[in-house]
Amino acid sequence: MNDVIARCRWLAQFSEEPGAITRTFLSDPMHAVHHHMRGWMEQAGMRVTIDHAGNLRGAYSSDKEPAPRLFIGSHLDTVPGAGAFDGILGVVLGVALIEKLGGRRLSFAIEVIGFSEEEGVRFGVPFIGSRAFIGDLDNGLLASISGAVTAFGLDPTQIGEARVSGDSLRYLEFHIEQGPVLESLNLPLGLVGAISGQSRLDMVFQGKANHAGTTPMGLRQDALAGAAEWITAVEREARVVPGAVATVGRMSVSPGAGNVIPGSVAASLDVRHVGDDVRHDLVARLLRCGERIAESRCLTVSWEQRLDQPAVAMDPALTQMLERAVEATGRPVHRMASGAGHDAMIVARRMPAAMLFLRSPGGISHHPDETVLAEDVAAALEVGMEFLKELEQRHA
Amino acid sequence: MNDVIARCRWLAQFSEEPGAITRTFLSDPMHAVHHHMRGWMEQAGMRVTIDHAGNLRGAYSSDKEPAPRLFIGSHLDTVPGAGAFDGILGVVLGVALIEKLGGRRLSFAIEVIGFSEEEGVRFGVPFIGSRAFIGDLDNGLLASISGAVTAFGLDPTQIGEARVSGDSLRYLEFHIEQGPVLESLNLPLGLVGAISGQSRLDMVFQGKANHAGTTPMGLRQDALAGAAEWITAVEREARVVPGAVATVGRMSVSPGAGNVIPGSVAASLDVRHVGDDVRHDLVARLLRCGERIAESRCLTVSWEQRLDQPAVAMDPALTQMLERAVEATGRPVHRMASGAGHDAMIVARRMPAAMLFLRSPGGISHHPDETVLAEDVAAALEVGMEFLKELEQRHA
Repeated sequence: MNDVIARCRWLAQFSEEPGAITRTFLSDPMHAVHHHMRGWMEQAGMRVTIDHAGNLRGAYSSDKEPAPRLFIGSHLDTVPGAGAFDGILGVVLGVALIEKLGGRRLSFAIEVIGFSEEEGVRFGVPFIGSRAFIGDLDNGLLASISGAVTAFGLDPTQIGEARVSGDSLRYLEFHIEQGPVLESLNLPLGLVGAISGQSRLDMVFQGKANHAGTTPMGLRQDALAGAAEWITAVEREARVVPGAVATVGRMSVSPGAGNVIPGSVAASLDVRHVGDDVRHDLVARLLRCGERIAESRCLTVSWEQRLDQPAVAMDPALTQMLERAVEATGRPVHRMASGAGHDAMIVARRMPAAMLFLRSPGGISHHPDETVLAEDVAAALEVGMEFLKELEQRHA
Repeated sequence: MNDVIARCRWLAQFSEEPGAITRTFLSDPMHAVHHHMRGWMEQAGMRVTIDHAGNLRGAYSSDKEPAPRLFIGSHLDTVPGAGAFDGILGVVLGVALIEKLGGRRLSFAIEVIGFSEEEGVRFGVPFIGSRAFIGDLDNGLLASISGAVTAFGLDPTQIGEARVSGDSLRYLEFHIEQGPVLESLNLPLGLVGAISGQSRLDMVFQGKANHAGTTPMGLRQDALAGAAEWITAVEREARVVPGAVATVGRMSVSPGAGNVIPGSVAASLDVRHVGDDVRHDLVARLLRCGERIAESRCLTVSWEQRLDQPAVAMDPALTQMLERAVEATGRPVHRMASGAGHDAMIVARRMPAAMLFLRSPGGISHHPDETVLAEDVAAALEVGMEFLKELEQRHA
């Protein structure tokens, strides 16, 4: 079995939930994914390790050492109820490129990397894998994940060794677009020029739980009614800012019985835009809305910022090299922004990074119907080979 | 330990959640509650059984048999994160009244009954205990609870034997008010004239899960944004109907990750009013709101009615007897409606029922701060003794 799409679908079976694809950071099914990936990597002539942040790393050495290094990577974790391609496609494509080399060694080393965490589901903080890779894990985060690291059979005290070292490094990421743009333009591939910045916050609306039958409407401090009013405001405010998106995706209501007025509500907030100032302004406006709504209802609202990720431009020179590779395959060139965050935006802090999008049929992602076209995967592989060829020429 | 308040607080330790009072239908901690109640009941000269619906029944026989029977009861289950008095106070008060008789037998039998289920938390259907008591469990409900009945050590095929038989039966329930009315009037006790009808529904808003970063605001089918708009409509519509209350107390968002647009939302709806037509009209209006909101957002909405409980008047003659008992203690008489449902409204279908409210400090219930005043408990016990005295005279 060496078909890229078939491999992705095969790996999708390793899930925390029967009948759904859910594979969070260092969850049990990640062991099986590592096992199968390791097999394919070793077969292709790679030396495989798992670093103590849980990143799967397959090294394909150069014919001369020391050599420049190209990383080809993406992530292996998923959101709950995910599709089979978000993240893992980029890792499987990396392995397929090495296989296409047929054992031939290049003037630069390649490391295919499957990051352990990008989605931020398990600990509410995304990019744990790529942040460990560039040496950007703070102590607070380390403390909160260390139990999970140990439980997975790794050593949290050695996470520092996941950090990449050396010079002359580059990073390439293949990823499905996860949006409707390429499909609407009838294009297989897109070159990512920049990745939107993201804010993620945890909000808590606090009121007073009380009996749903005996507390008159006018005397309630209903945390859910307040949160609901705020969610409609989040949508309304985001709609009027061109290019902005704002989402409340997670919510829990306490105590959570049908005959009890909700005493507190916890909700997530996710705001994205390519302009950091625009994004910060929008977040501030949404928080003021929350305060105003809470005050008018005798509730309190509090929040904790979990992420403030600036917009990140991809490396111009490397992206141009990728563009020439697209041209060399005869495919049309299209540059676009990414509304989604990707490991490339983290890795770009440490080395030049470039990114290629594959069209998402129906614009569907984070959903079981997420898919990718075989012809687009073939196109991406061709582009990848052209990219390796140009890099080889440059280092020859 | 024979103080009513201390007993309630003692029993509150038997909970499914450490640090909170949560004791749903036939949950494990109910065994401990039965054990302690049985001890007090037997000490007071009662014969104790647990019927196959999980109701705890302490029979205090008459000095002549066959005799009329007075049931004194309420429920032993709680909402999640409850207080220590809702329901169980009425059962503990019943035992305390028997203790006050000091072994003296009356011309009528008394059965103190602790219903197994009133809150509707575990199976989304309330009043399971009292419905079994009057023989009103349908086969669908029986099927859904039978596993829990078996797991508790009871026999679901024998639930029918929980049904009360015979003539000349009466029911008396003591319960905390769970609202702010008696406190606002500076009164210890209230006579319940009628209990509001209730509708309970389960709603589902269905949209499409998708990526929170790449799906423009205008192309979303966000189930949570739709549900939030509806919740604000529920509140707005209920506010303009005098005496009505409407509550969304339970909500779950799927898939439930901060970076995924919610694909579906399940929410509860609870609507109450003393006028059944008013209540039905309000429910219909709220469902039309849901449909209109869903349609405007390319969502679908569906619902299932879980309860349509008509308003129930208490028995006039028995309530008058209870009123005379209040007067005999020198306390002021106050008649009121109950915005909360109680076992008495179920039992009233089978026998004359009356109900006495005890003031709720702060109007607080379904909350850990729920409490009751010692002087009000003393007043309720005095009224109960006067009530037994009048019943004794009537049957002498």
